[in-house]
Amino acid sequence: MSERYDIAIVGTGPAGLSAAITAKLRNKSVLLLGSRELSPKVQKAHAIQNYLGLPNVAGDALGEAFRRHLDAVGVAITEDRITAAYPMGDYYALQGAEAIYEATALILATGMVPGKLLPGESALLGRGVSYCATCDAPLYRGKRVAVIGYSAGEEREAAFLAELAAHVAYFPMYADAPALPDTVEIISDRPTEIAEADGQRQVVTANGTHAVDGVFILRDSISPGQLVPGLATDGNHVAVDRGMATNLPGCFACGDVTGLPYQYSKSAGEGNVAALSAVAYLDRLKRA
Amino acid sequence: MSERYDIAIVGTGPAGLSAAITAKLRNKSVLLLGSRELSPKVQKAHAIQNYLGLPNVAGDALGEAFRRHLDAVGVAITEDRITAAYPMGDYYALQGAEAIYEATALILATGMVPGKLLPGESALLGRGVSYCATCDAPLYRGKRVAVIGYSAGEEREAAFLAELAAHVAYFPMYADAPALPDTVEIISDRPTEIAEADGQRQVVTANGTHAVDGVFILRDSISPGQLVPGLATDGNHVAVDRGMATNLPGCFACGDVTGLPYQYSKSAGEGNVAALSAVAYLDRLKRA
Repeated sequence: MSERYDIAIVGTGPAGLSAAITAKLRNKSVLLLGSRELSPKVQKAHAIQNYLGLPNVAGDALGEAFRRHLDAVGVAITEDRITAAYPMGDYYALQGAEAIYEATALILATGMVPGKLLPGESALLGRGVSYCATCDAPLYRGKRVAVIGYSAGEEREAAFLAELAAHVAYFPMYADAPALPDTVEIISDRPTEIAEADGQRQVVTANGTHAVDGVFILRDSISPGQLVPGLATDGNHVAVDRGMATNLPGCFACGDVTGLPYQYSKSAGEGNVAALSAVAYLDRLKRA
Repeated sequence: MSERYDIAIVGTGPAGLSAAITAKLRNKSVLLLGSRELSPKVQKAHAIQNYLGLPNVAGDALGEAFRRHLDAVGVAITEDRITAAYPMGDYYALQGAEAIYEATALILATGMVPGKLLPGESALLGRGVSYCATCDAPLYRGKRVAVIGYSAGEEREAAFLAELAAHVAYFPMYADAPALPDTVEIISDRPTEIAEADGQRQVVTANGTHAVDGVFILRDSISPGQLVPGLATDGNHVAVDRGMATNLPGCFACGDVTGLPYQYSKSAGEGNVAALSAVAYLDRLKRA
């Protein structure tokens, strides 16, 4: 059985890092899940003017400062992508690409949510539509799949699928030309819909319909309502109170995923509050 | 007529500074009111562990980083103490000790509110009880006053009152021995109540009753409900929504004054959000 952490934090942008540091300083066992590259948005920012205490700081310097802080406090990043988190009553089970994790409290710091889902995506999720190549690739051994990749980082997932599937069609949702093995067919038409017909899935573009057995839709972040079953959302964002609590006991959210304004300072502050609220939740459980 | 600022910010702790920097970067005219010493709480902190990006930073170093940031953005501090802010319809009038100020939007960042008011304090405010020596000293020329000072910084107010009043009794609410002119009587009994009898005010202590014409109660911060007439509070704190808006149009609040947890990171993040909400309010007014 896997270790049960006190607090799992999903996301390594400013909100997730701030939450992890405060939770760790409060002596909780912390599982920080995300990319060791931290937030690409932070790293790539030209200069940030209004992060109090660090005037006119370049994105990569701010990222470096965040990383030094993590190291100073002793928080490690577990590099994995969480595709679902299930409320199990008194804990959360997190489905990663590499493993399944358990934590008593959950903090969502998954960043800006994708603009819009593709029509049909939500309805077919789990029925031929998947967000996780590592998890679901075995289902498509010898079959035909489509991969809709929202960033170049998804190309390695497509290459991995090509090792198992009979055919992989890759739809890049970005400008750069993909670097992929010859076994992967690159289709530059942008998908506009996911449909189903005759027991198959269809990726619909302006120029035609591509029938496949499975569709992998790979984005840096997943819509939070898709990530946690039963989570209350406000439009595209997680609904939270002033203590960053969601509608689910023990589940908190912070940073861009909770809505505008998208600001480093707001994110760090909310991460700080979410961590202290999670600590208070754990203390209440212990007393109960 | 005094200049009408876009945004007045009361308080120079992390919340006020963060709000001022973001508002200034958004090209608004900003009046930042408070102490040039910034927050004594920040300066005196031994070390802050969880202000993301500045690991294990000493309070004075954090204060210095904040000051450099203010300078870099070009925000000056107007050193004055605001004793009241009145909603005037389309602007706020702020009563300072040095002047009256006007601003279209108001951000309250006044910090932790005093624990408890003295019994009788609230009922007698404006009827023999005052929060501002500079404002109300002329009313007590040749009369007897009591000064209840919550920090050594209030001693200069008592010395000033002694120049006008016939007699000043000073009640220090702190441990250090006050340094005051001989004309000021120092009474070390802690006041427990403010009362009225026979047309006079009374400072009640465990050991007796001191009858005076006026009572000055001087604290670093004033309870927000006392500061702004009509402001909705939640217990001792200002009630705000997730955008840091109060119940009064154009009035926002951030930092410790909005409630627990009292954290630098939360305060900076809330200041950032309050400033952007105030900017949006100003933009709506302009379009209306």
